[in-house]
Amino acid sequence: MTEQPASTANQMWGGRFAAGPDAIMEAINASIGFDQRLYAQDIRGSRAHAAMLAAQGIISDSDAKAIGEGLLTVLSEIEKGDFPFSTALEDIHMNVESRLKEVIGEPAGRLHTARSRNDQVATDFRLWVRDQCDAAISGLDALIRAALAQAEAGADWVMPGFTHLQTAQPVTWGHHMMAYVEMFGRDLSRFQDARKRMNESPLGAAALAGTGFPIDRHATAQALGFDRPMANSLDAVSDRDFALEYLSSAAICAVHLSRLAEELVIWSSAQFRFVTMSDRFSTGSSIMPQKKNPDAAELIRAKIGRILGAAVALFVVMKGLPLAYSKDMQEDKEQVFDASDNLMLALAAMTGMLSDLVANRDRLEAAAGAGFSTATDLADWLVREAGLPFRDAHHATGALVAMAEKRGVDLPDLTLDEMRSVNPAITGDVYKVLGVHNSVASRTSYGGTAPAQVRAQIARWKEKLA
Amino acid sequence: MTEQPASTANQMWGGRFAAGPDAIMEAINASIGFDQRLYAQDIRGSRAHAAMLAAQGIISDSDAKAIGEGLLTVLSEIEKGDFPFSTALEDIHMNVESRLKEVIGEPAGRLHTARSRNDQVATDFRLWVRDQCDAAISGLDALIRAALAQAEAGADWVMPGFTHLQTAQPVTWGHHMMAYVEMFGRDLSRFQDARKRMNESPLGAAALAGTGFPIDRHATAQALGFDRPMANSLDAVSDRDFALEYLSSAAICAVHLSRLAEELVIWSSAQFRFVTMSDRFSTGSSIMPQKKNPDAAELIRAKIGRILGAAVALFVVMKGLPLAYSKDMQEDKEQVFDASDNLMLALAAMTGMLSDLVANRDRLEAAAGAGFSTATDLADWLVREAGLPFRDAHHATGALVAMAEKRGVDLPDLTLDEMRSVNPAITGDVYKVLGVHNSVASRTSYGGTAPAQVRAQIARWKEKLA
Amino acid sequence: MTEQPASTANQMWGGRFAAGPDAIMEAINASIGFDQRLYAQDIRGSRAHAAMLAAQGIISDSDAKAIGEGLLTVLSEIEKGDFPFSTALEDIHMNVESRLKEVIGEPAGRLHTARSRNDQVATDFRLWVRDQCDAAISGLDALIRAALAQAEAGADWVMPGFTHLQTAQPVTWGHHMMAYVEMFGRDLSRFQDARKRMNESPLGAAALAGTGFPIDRHATAQALGFDRPMANSLDAVSDRDFALEYLSSAAICAVHLSRLAEELVIWSSAQFRFVTMSDRFSTGSSIMPQKKNPDAAELIRAKIGRILGAAVALFVVMKGLPLAYSKDMQEDKEQVFDASDNLMLALAAMTGMLSDLVANRDRLEAAAGAGFSTATDLADWLVREAGLPFRDAHHATGALVAMAEKRGVDLPDLTLDEMRSVNPAITGDVYKVLGVHNSVASRTSYGGTAPAQVRAQIARWKEKLA
Amino acid sequence: MTEQPASTANQMWGGRFAAGPDAIMEAINASIGFDQRLYAQDIRGSRAHAAMLAAQGIISDSDAKAIGEGLLTVLSEIEKGDFPFSTALEDIHMNVESRLKEVIGEPAGRLHTARSRNDQVATDFRLWVRDQCDAAISGLDALIRAALAQAEAGADWVMPGFTHLQTAQPVTWGHHMMAYVEMFGRDLSRFQDARKRMNESPLGAAALAGTGFPIDRHATAQALGFDRPMANSLDAVSDRDFALEYLSSAAICAVHLSRLAEELVIWSSAQFRFVTMSDRFSTGSSIMPQKKNPDAAELIRAKIGRILGAAVALFVVMKGLPLAYSKDMQEDKEQVFDASDNLMLALAAMTGMLSDLVANRDRLEAAAGAGFSTATDLADWLVREAGLPFRDAHHATGALVAMAEKRGVDLPDLTLDEMRSVNPAITGDVYKVLGVHNSVASRTSYGGTAPAQVRAQIARWKEKLA
Repeated sequence: MTEQPASTANQMWGGRFAAGPDAIMEAINASIGFDQRLYAQDIRGSRAHAAMLAAQGIISDSDAKAIGEGLLTVLSEIEKGDFPFSTALEDIHMNVESRLKEVIGEPAGRLHTARSRNDQVATDFRLWVRDQCDAAISGLDALIRAALAQAEAGADWVMPGFTHLQTAQPVTWGHHMMAYVEMFGRDLSRFQDARKRMNESPLGAAALAGTGFPIDRHATAQALGFDRPMANSLDAVSDRDFALEYLSSAAICAVHLSRLAEELVIWSSAQFRFVTMSDRFSTGSSIMPQKKNPDAAELIRAKIGRILGAAVALFVVMKGLPLAYSKDMQEDKEQVFDASDNLMLALAAMTGMLSDLVANRDRLEAAAGAGFSTATDLADWLVREAGLPFRDAHHATGALVAMAEKRGVDLPDLTLDEMRSVNPAITGDVYKVLGVHNSVASRTSYGGTAPAQVRAQIARWKEKLA
Repeated sequence: MTEQPASTANQMWGGRFAAGPDAIMEAINASIGFDQRLYAQDIRGSRAHAAMLAAQGIISDSDAKAIGEGLLTVLSEIEKGDFPFSTALEDIHMNVESRLKEVIGEPAGRLHTARSRNDQVATDFRLWVRDQCDAAISGLDALIRAALAQAEAGADWVMPGFTHLQTAQPVTWGHHMMAYVEMFGRDLSRFQDARKRMNESPLGAAALAGTGFPIDRHATAQALGFDRPMANSLDAVSDRDFALEYLSSAAICAVHLSRLAEELVIWSSAQFRFVTMSDRFSTGSSIMPQKKNPDAAELIRAKIGRILGAAVALFVVMKGLPLAYSKDMQEDKEQVFDASDNLMLALAAMTGMLSDLVANRDRLEAAAGAGFSTATDLADWLVREAGLPFRDAHHATGALVAMAEKRGVDLPDLTLDEMRSVNPAITGDVYKVLGVHNSVASRTSYGGTAPAQVRAQIARWKEKLA
Repeated sequence: MTEQPASTANQMWGGRFAAGPDAIMEAINASIGFDQRLYAQDIRGSRAHAAMLAAQGIISDSDAKAIGEGLLTVLSEIEKGDFPFSTALEDIHMNVESRLKEVIGEPAGRLHTARSRNDQVATDFRLWVRDQCDAAISGLDALIRAALAQAEAGADWVMPGFTHLQTAQPVTWGHHMMAYVEMFGRDLSRFQDARKRMNESPLGAAALAGTGFPIDRHATAQALGFDRPMANSLDAVSDRDFALEYLSSAAICAVHLSRLAEELVIWSSAQFRFVTMSDRFSTGSSIMPQKKNPDAAELIRAKIGRILGAAVALFVVMKGLPLAYSKDMQEDKEQVFDASDNLMLALAAMTGMLSDLVANRDRLEAAAGAGFSTATDLADWLVREAGLPFRDAHHATGALVAMAEKRGVDLPDLTLDEMRSVNPAITGDVYKVLGVHNSVASRTSYGGTAPAQVRAQIARWKEKLA
Repeated sequence: MTEQPASTANQMWGGRFAAGPDAIMEAINASIGFDQRLYAQDIRGSRAHAAMLAAQGIISDSDAKAIGEGLLTVLSEIEKGDFPFSTALEDIHMNVESRLKEVIGEPAGRLHTARSRNDQVATDFRLWVRDQCDAAISGLDALIRAALAQAEAGADWVMPGFTHLQTAQPVTWGHHMMAYVEMFGRDLSRFQDARKRMNESPLGAAALAGTGFPIDRHATAQALGFDRPMANSLDAVSDRDFALEYLSSAAICAVHLSRLAEELVIWSSAQFRFVTMSDRFSTGSSIMPQKKNPDAAELIRAKIGRILGAAVALFVVMKGLPLAYSKDMQEDKEQVFDASDNLMLALAAMTGMLSDLVANRDRLEAAAGAGFSTATDLADWLVREAGLPFRDAHHATGALVAMAEKRGVDLPDLTLDEMRSVNPAITGDVYKVLGVHNSVASRTSYGGTAPAQVRAQIARWKEKLA
C-alpha cells in the first residue's frame, strides 16, 4: 500500500488486521532481506526529495535540514554495519524512515509528503541499475584493455582459424583477440544505450497519479543525475523495462564471455596446449603436476546460465501485469542483484585471466600449419595471379594437396617443378602465400588477419579508449 | 580437484601455486557461502561412508567410531550456529573435514579414503534435492486438503464458468476448486516420480572411475535410504538431470499456482468481489477501508518467474558440458535452493490463503446467471428432450434469448406460452435445465459440474489422501 | 564448409563421401526450407559484391553485368513463385548460385570470388534483421498513433487507477493510454539503437580471415546501406549478437503488449465492462449475445511466450561456441523469423484493436469514484491547505471515510458541517479535490494525471511524431 | 467459442459480426496452418465419440455409421494430400467437420452433440503428445542400443577420463559410452512416466462443465487407449501440464544429447583425433582432405536451444491464465510440434552418428597414459596394500611423479629400486595398478570402470532391452 506514510504503516495495519501477519505472510511479503542493498540510493533520493520540498515551500527549511542531516546519520550507521534492519518494517524505505524518526523526531513525518513508496522504490531501483550500467562499462573497459594487450603482443603470432573446431585457415593471435575486443566493445555500447534510456526520474509520480503538491520534478531529477523526469506517472511506477534491458544486455555480454571461456578451457587441454593459465586462475593436483584445472574459465562459462535465468525470471514476472503497481514487481530486484554480481565477477575474472594468460606460441604456429591449412591461399593465388578460372584452380589445388599428402609433406615443401607438373602457370611467386606466415600476411582486406590490419585495428581501439 | 584429501588441499596448492588465489578467484571459486546448506547431508553421507569403510576392513573400527562421533560433534556445532565457516576452505566438504580433524585428530584423514569430492558433492546434493521432493509432496498434500475443504463447503454453490474471462456456463465453486485439486495431484505425482528416479547413490563413484578399494556401495546406498547405487561412476559424478527434473516439476507446479493466484487477484477486485481474502494474507490502506491488496496472491503469481528462471539457468549451465566433472556444475545448487525456497513458500502461502478464503456466495450466484449463461442448456434440452435437430435447436434458442433480452428478463423468466410461441415442442420440463442450479445439476456426465459428481470426486480424493 | 565455390560443393562431396548424405543428414543439415526467406537479401548482397569485384578489376565488367542481370532474373523467378527450391542444394546461397549458372553460364562461377558462405550468410541475415528493426519501428509508430488517438479522445475521462487491481486513485483514460505511449516509445528507440549498432557489413570477411583479393569492403558496405564494414573478419562471421539484441528488444516490447492485452481482457469481462471490443477483433456466440470473446487480445498476450522462447533458444545456441563459424549457428534464423512474424502480427492486431476500441465512459467514471478513491486527495488537502501534520490529516481522513461509509455515501456527499465536526480546519475549498474530476484535475505535477498535463504530453508526442 | 456446432460457426458470426474478421484477425486467429497436423487424432477422436453417442442412444446407429465412414473418407483425402484446407474454417476441427458435411450431408451435424471444441482440441492434442512420448521412447531405445554396441566393442579400450577437460584418470571407452546409456535410460523412463500421467481422456468435458447428455466417457476413453476419463471437466479443457512435462523431458534429453555432441566435436578436432566420424554425418572440403566438419554433431548440440525455448514459451503462455479455456492456449501446439520434430531428428542423427563412429583406439590409449594419470592409483595402492597413512602415501606419490618427470618417463617405467628408494614398503605388486590397463582393471567397485564391471552393466542393459 502506498497511500499512507510508510513509517506508520505497520502499526495501522495492526488496527485493521486483527489477525496480524503471520510467519508465512511475513516471509513472502517482506523485502528488507534483499532491498537493503538499495540503502544508498534510497537515502540519496530522500535527500533530494526533502531539499526540493523545502525549495518549493512545501516543508520548512529547518525540517528539510533536519531530514537531510538525519539521513546522513542513518547512512553512516548502515555503512558502519550497525544498523538494526527489521523484518517487521518490511522494506528499506520503512527501515530508513523509521530510524530517521528516532534520530530527528517529528520532522521525519514530513519527508513522505508528495511521494509514495511506489515512486520511491522505482527511483531507488533505477538509480541502482544505472550504477550497474556504469560498473559494467568500467568492467568491459578493463577487459577490452586486457584483450588489446594480448592482441598487441601477438599481432603476428599465427594460430589456426577454426570452423567447426576444425583447422580452416591460419589467423593471428592478435586477430583472434581483436574479435573479442569488437564483441566487448558492442557490449559496452549496449550498456551505454541502456543507461541513457533509463536515465529519467520516476520521483514525484507518487502512488501512480502524480500529486497536487507543487513539487518540482525537474529539480529532483537534476539532483539525482537524471536527464529529465519521466513524462507519465503511471508508466513511472509500473514499468521495469529498464531492468529487462539491463538483464538482456548482461546476458548478451555473458554469451560472449562464455565463448571465450570455452576456448580457454579447450585450449588448456593436454591435447591443445595452446595456452597456459596462471596459477592464480586455475587449480591443480598435488600429485599430477600437469593437471591445471581452468576453474575460473569454467565458472565464467557457466555465468550465462544464471544471468539468462534472471532475465527470464523478470520477463515472466512482468508478463501480463495490469497497470499500475502490482506486488509481483517486488520480485524484480533479486534477479538484477544476482545477475549484476555475477556479471561483474565474470568480467573481473576474465580480465585477470586474460592478463595472466600465456599463449604457447610454438604450439599455435605448429597447429596453424597442419592440415594443409593454406590450400585456400593456393587456390586463390591460382585465380588471382595465374588467371585460372575458379574451377581449374580448385582442381589443381586438390591435385597438389594430394601430392603433398602422398609425400607426407606440407604444401610449401613441394618443389616448383612438382607444382608446375600439375599446372605450368604456377610460378615461384606462389610460395609467397604458402606457409602460414605468408598466408596471414596476404589477408590484407579491411578487417582481415594480416598483421598490418590487426595493428591498424589495435591502434584504432587504443585511440578510442584514450 | 578431487585426487587428494580435501582437508589438505589448499595448503598443497599453496606449494604449487606460488601466486596464491587472489580475491577474484576466491570470490568466483568458493562455494561455502551457499553449499553450507548441505551440511546435514554431507555429514550423513560421511558417516555412512566411514561405517562402510570399517565394515569392509578398509579402516579400523576405532577410527570409524572416532569419525562417526566427531562428525556428530561438528553437526551439533553447525546446528548451534557457532561453526566458523571459512571461505579459505572453499566448500562445505572441506570445512567439515578440517573441523573434524581439529576434533578427532589423525583418524579424520582416513575418512576421505575411497571417495572424492566429486561423488561426495553429488551425494550431498542428491540427498538434498530428494528432501525437497518430500517437502513438495507434503506441501502439495496440505494444499490439496485446503482446496478439498473449499470444494466440500461449496460443492453446490454456483458461479460462472469462464472462457476468455467471459461467462460461458454455470459451474459450482466445488467443481472449480476440484480442478485445482486435480492439477496439484498431478504435481504431487510428478515429484514422486522424480524422487523415485533420483533415488540412487552416487557415493563410491570416487573421482569418476570408481575405486580399487573393496568398498560396498550397496551398503552406503542402503544406509542413506537410496534404492541402489548408481550403475556408472562417470554418470554418477557428471549428471544433474535429477536437479533439472526437480526444477521442471517445480515450474509446472508454479504455473498451476500462478493460475489460481491470478484468479484470486481478479476475484478480489471491486468489480468481481467473488471472494474475500483474510487479513492475514492481504494488506490494506488505513484510509481506504475497501482496499484490500492481495499481496500474497500476487507474490505467488510471480514465483513461476524465478522458478522457471532457475530451471533455465541450470539447463544452460549443463548444455554442452563434456564428461565428467566440470566446475561449471558448481552453479547447480543456488538455483535449486532458490527455487525450492520459493516453491515451498508459495505452497504454504496458497494453503493458508485458501484456508482463510471466504467465497461471496451471493455474488457468485448472481454472476453465474448473468448473460443468459444457460442458453447452451436450453439448446441441449431441445436436442435431447424435444428431439430437435441441432440446427433448429440452435435457432430456437437464439430466438428465445432475443425475446428475453428484449423483455429485459432472464431465460427462466419466460412463460411456457412465450417459449412455445417459438417452438411448440417445448414443454414445462424445460425449466428443469434453466436457472443456474438446474443447469449445474443437469451436468451429470463423469467429471461434470453436477454437485453429485463433484461430491463423488471429493470423496474419491478424501479416500486417496486417507 | 566454406573454402569452395558453393555451387559445386555437393557434387564434390559426392566424390569424397562415398556413402552420400542420407535422409537424416539431409533433414538435419539442409536449411533451404527456411533460409529461402533471405532470397532478396542474398541477391542484393551478391549484386553489390559482383559490382565491387568489377570495379576493383577482380572480374571483368562483362561478367559483372551478366551476374547482375542474371541475379535479377533469379529474383524475379522467386518472386513469381516459380523457383524450384532444391533441398539437395541445401541453402539459399547455393540455390541462387546454381540457378544463376543455368541462366548465365560460366560467369556465374566468378561471383563467389573473394567471399565465402560464412560472410555471405552473415550479410544476408544482418540485412534481414535490419529490415525487421525498420518494420518494428513502423509498427510501433502506428501503434503509438492509435494509443495517442485514444488518449486525445479521453484526456479527461476518469477511470480508476489501480494498484494490485484494487482501485487506488482516479486517473484519466488519456493518462492510462499515454503510459503505453511512453512504453512503446522506449521500445521504438530500442529498435533504433539495435539497428544502428548492427548496421555494419560482414561482407568481405570471407571464410573467417579476410582475403588476399584487393576487394573494397567500404564500397559493398555503402552499396548495402551499411554504415561501415565490420572491423574484424572473425567477429564478422562468428557473432550473432545483433540477432540476440533484436530478440531481446522484441521480448521487452512483447511484455508491454501483454500487459495492455491483459487489461483489455479484464476490462472486457462482464464484471468490468470498461471497454467494448469491435467485432473485428473478437469472436462471439450465436446464442449468447453478450459473450464477446477477446481472442485477439488473448493471442497478443500470449506472444511474449514464443518471442521470449525464441530469445532463450538463440542464447542457448550461442552459449560456449568457439570461434569462428560453427554449424550450430544455422539455428539462428528460424527463431528470429518466428519472433519477428509474431511481433509484427501482435503490433498490427493491437493497433487495429485499439483503433476500434470503445471505452465505456460511464462505467469507467462510476468505477473511478467507488471505494472512497479520493481519500488520499482529502488527506493531502488537509496537509497542504489546512496545514495539518501528516499524522493528524491521516487520522481525520480515516474518521471522515468511516462517517461516509456509515452513512452509505461517498466523501463529497458529506456536508461541510459534518466535515468540520471531525476537524474544524476544513473549509469549503475541500470539495475542490473531492469527486473524481476534481481529484484528477488537482494532480498537476509534471507527468501527473491532470487533463492539462495529459494534453501537454499528447502535444509533445504529436510533435515528436510529425 | 464452444457453445455452438463448429461447422456453422463462421456463418453465424457473419450475422453477428457485421464487420467480419479482417486479414489481421484471420492471420492471428486461424490455427489451421499448424493444427492440421492433428488430423489423424481429430478423426480418431470423432469416430470414437460418434460410436459412443450411438451406443448410448444419443444418435442413431445409421447416423453413427455414416459419420464413421465419412470420417474415414476425409482421413483418406487428407493422407492423399488432396484435402483443401481452408483458413476461413479456422482450425482442423471445422475443416474436417465441414468436409464431412459435404460427404455425408445432414448426419454430420449430429457429430458435435455433447462435445465442444474445447474438449475436442484437448483430446486431439493429448493423443498427439502421447504419440510423441512413444516416439521418443522408441528413438531412445535405438540410441541406447547404438551406445551399447559401442560400449561392447570397446569395453576394455582405455581412454582419458576427464575432469575440467584435463586428463584425470584412465577409464574405458565402454565405460564412457555406458554413462550415456544410463542418462538416455533415465530420459526414456521420464517419457514413460509422462505418458502414463497424461493418459487420461478429456473427451466429454464439453465446453467446460460436462454435459447433460447421457454420454459414456469411460467408453470413449477406452476406445482411444486412455486409462480413464479425466475426473474434472474444467481441468480437462484448461490444463496443458502434459505438454509442459513432455517439453521438460525433451529438454533434459536434449541436454544429454548436447553433452555427447560436444564431446564428439572436441574429439573430432585435429588436436584430439579420438574419433573419426563417418562421411554420412559430416561434411568436408574438396581441397582440405583432413577437414571433416562434424555438422550433425553441432546441430544436435544446438537442439537444446530450440527445445528449451519451446518449453519456456509454453510456460510463459500458461502463466497466470484463469480457468477455463483462454485463446492464449492456441499457442501450445506449435511449440510442441517444433520441439518434437527436432528431438526426434536429433535422436535419429545421434543414433546414426554413433553407429558409424570409429574410435581411434591408439590415440585414446596414448592420451589415457599421459600426464601421470595413474598417480592416484599409485597413492591408493600405497594406502591399500602398503598400509601407508594417506598423507605419507600422497607424499611418496608426489616424489615418484617428480622422479619420473625428471627422467622423462612415465610411472610404470620407474624401476622397483627407484620406487623403493622413495619408500621401501613398495613391492613389485605396485606395477599391477600402474599403466592404464592395470589402472582401469583395478577399479572394480560397483559401477567402476574395470572392464568386468563395464561388461556386467552391458549385460544388465541387454537383458533389460530384450
